[in-house]
Amino acid sequence: MQRDNAGSTIATSTGRLRQRRRSNEVSPEVSNANGTHLLVDDRNKYQSMLVRAYSSVWMIGGFAFVIYMGHLYIWAMVVIIQIFMAKELFNLLRKAHEDRHLPGFRLLNWHFFFTAMLFVYGRILSQHLVNTMTVDKFFYKLTSRLIKYQMVICYFLYIAGFIWFILTLKKKMYKYQFGQFAWTHMILIIAFTQSSFTVANIFEGIFWFLLPASVIVINDIAAYFFGFFFGRTPLIKLSPKKTWEGVIGGSVTTIISAFVLAECFSHFEWLTCPRKDLSTSWLYCEPSSVYKPENYTFPGWVPQWFPWKEVSVRPVQWHSLCIALFASCIAPFGGLFASGFKRAFKIKDFGDSIPGHGGITDRMDCQMLMAVFAYIYYHSFVVLENYSVDILLDQILRNLSVDEQKTLLDKFNQTFLDRQLRGS
Amino acid sequence: MQRDNAGSTIATSTGRLRQRRRSNEVSPEVSNANGTHLLVDDRNKYQSMLVRAYSSVWMIGGFAFVIYMGHLYIWAMVVIIQIFMAKELFNLLRKAHEDRHLPGFRLLNWHFFFTAMLFVYGRILSQHLVNTMTVDKFFYKLTSRLIKYQMVICYFLYIAGFIWFILTLKKKMYKYQFGQFAWTHMILIIAFTQSSFTVANIFEGIFWFLLPASVIVINDIAAYFFGFFFGRTPLIKLSPKKTWEGVIGGSVTTIISAFVLAECFSHFEWLTCPRKDLSTSWLYCEPSSVYKPENYTFPGWVPQWFPWKEVSVRPVQWHSLCIALFASCIAPFGGLFASGFKRAFKIKDFGDSIPGHGGITDRMDCQMLMAVFAYIYYHSFVVLENYSVDILLDQILRNLSVDEQKTLLDKFNQTFLDRQLRGS
Repeated sequence: MQRDNAGSTIATSTGRLRQRRRSNEVSPEVSNANGTHLLVDDRNKYQSMLVRAYSSVWMIGGFAFVIYMGHLYIWAMVVIIQIFMAKELFNLLRKAHEDRHLPGFRLLNWHFFFTAMLFVYGRILSQHLVNTMTVDKFFYKLTSRLIKYQMVICYFLYIAGFIWFILTLKKKMYKYQFGQFAWTHMILIIAFTQSSFTVANIFEGIFWFLLPASVIVINDIAAYFFGFFFGRTPLIKLSPKKTWEGVIGGSVTTIISAFVLAECFSHFEWLTCPRKDLSTSWLYCEPSSVYKPENYTFPGWVPQWFPWKEVSVRPVQWHSLCIALFASCIAPFGGLFASGFKRAFKIKDFGDSIPGHGGITDRMDCQMLMAVFAYIYYHSFVVLENYSVDILLDQILRNLSVDEQKTLLDKFNQTFLDRQLRGS
Repeated sequence: MQRDNAGSTIATSTGRLRQRRRSNEVSPEVSNANGTHLLVDDRNKYQSMLVRAYSSVWMIGGFAFVIYMGHLYIWAMVVIIQIFMAKELFNLLRKAHEDRHLPGFRLLNWHFFFTAMLFVYGRILSQHLVNTMTVDKFFYKLTSRLIKYQMVICYFLYIAGFIWFILTLKKKMYKYQFGQFAWTHMILIIAFTQSSFTVANIFEGIFWFLLPASVIVINDIAAYFFGFFFGRTPLIKLSPKKTWEGVIGGSVTTIISAFVLAECFSHFEWLTCPRKDLSTSWLYCEPSSVYKPENYTFPGWVPQWFPWKEVSVRPVQWHSLCIALFASCIAPFGGLFASGFKRAFKIKDFGDSIPGHGGITDRMDCQMLMAVFAYIYYHSFVVLENYSVDILLDQILRNLSVDEQKTLLDKFNQTFLDRQLRGS
């Protein structure tokens, strides 16, 4: 609620600004006092901003602590956020009157949700789970077997939900029920599956989770303040509080911060090493070449005028620029989508979980687009040389039983021996 | 349209049957003439059944011809069906009045559709495409590069559509537009993506496309006739024309036919060999062991009474029983889902493309569930142990350069060493 208030503050302020510019000749001294004046004017709005800042500090602190604790805790955090998001979104289009006539229909949504969770996390993390276990123990064999049939299990859970849905269809409720069915699926795709990509990113190295998430937050805050202090030209009708000044100022800030953050993060093995299992132990690794500084010599004329001969940049910093560009130019459309949706269904916020911010979904709208982009970007442009090797190795380890892996290894070794014989 | 007429014929006929059973003592001779009587009664309905039978014969003939032509033609057929289905479904919830105010909004649906097509078929068939080409030619390199960035390309096409959607949002239309957005996504998942699994099945061997598709058709027809002649006990309110007698008679027929069909199909290399490229040339292969007959000896007491000592069954015939069981017990829920949906939105048929049958979607409702099941079943239970080993080894040797193969071998050996260390 407060968020929209803050939004309308800016909306009114830009509105007044435009009026003022038009009547600029008459009273030029009023326009100097614009933002402050409005805030001082209304104690409530000032306080709502304080509440928002206060809960932001707590959130950022908690986030930093979770990052420090490690991969498993970050995963747990993502899952908790997803459950809260799903709860908010499930409740959104529910009608109490219709639900009273449909016992167990709420449960069905959660059945689909947990099936999706089993499917998505099973695909992302099954290999990590196997790597965590001691070979040849009973649980190891049980797990490998479960993983082999993971797709079948998930499919039958889904089909069970599907049949459950059909059997609970009630006359005169059809339209409401099919609407709910579609809505559940949309939540699972747009909110759940998209945000699950973060988990894949976490295990490739916390860097690939932390950097994208941070640049989104930085872009949000920077755009907010640039818009607040310099915002004059409205950007799009859908979201009257967004201004060109805010977007451009936010972008520049984001790009610079991303470049700096990537440099900082690269110093920590905790952030850069991928994790192949589900333990929380300390991580050591030979850092990948993307995190190692490379020297770039300036063209001849620069050293004549400045005291710089060369500059040292890590490749990951160039990558971070692309991520920042996405975060400031494309991810905000996630926010526009959410606010358009809220307008369509005449909702102020998706929920009221975070004081001063609205629901959790309100804070996550851009993060979801970003997670998918970070995942695709990492797998298409960052994992360089050994890309196809790693993918195939992953396929082998995921799809074959231990015995089959042994067979494959033997055959593979044999092929190399044959080749050497033929070669010599 | 005619289909629903036929449906209501049966509904009325079972209704009358139940009435008749109650008044059985009064006029027993009427119940003998039930179905025929009704059909003779109404020339229109008799003719509609003729039309339906006529177009069915054409469809089955065309289908057989396409199967004979081969994998690429079957794929083309699937794509054409998908386009027609998408067209029917897109038009379903469209309102002409709203669309007039939203130029280009129809195009957006097709943009999403073709993006989904590029994504799904890219994932299924990229390796086949590479295998078709001559190595080291220009197009080979171009294609490999395009395939490497396939995910990025599709993602940006999707994001472009997403931004397009947000930019065309118009006041007072929000709810309609978001509804359309959700509807498009539901079509892409439920109709398009599900039916695309058939294409993956085709290239594993036409068998895995033809058998599932046939048993669905057989089950439909058998259930229809059993219901028509013996149907007394209604099954579910949602679909009054379905009876227990129809379902049970259909199931038994389906299971027997599947067992026989699997035996017949196993004789043709054209149907059993997987295809690794996109050519239409003749297929030769060493048939996989699932297609080879195995002898089962009867227990001692059977030969005493019957002249049989052992029976020869191909493993694929046991598999076909599972597929038939799914086709007769679970796939019909796809049809129930579709008919529930039609009731919810007060539609008679999804379209009118096939004379006597309604729209293409009306004929495909159960096929879609089946396609996914066949895919998952094949990959979880049929691909035998060393088969997957061989496939992976094949992929390794074909796709990696010699250096990469060496890297992979080293990493693979390392993984085994690590595991042994953890184990000891």
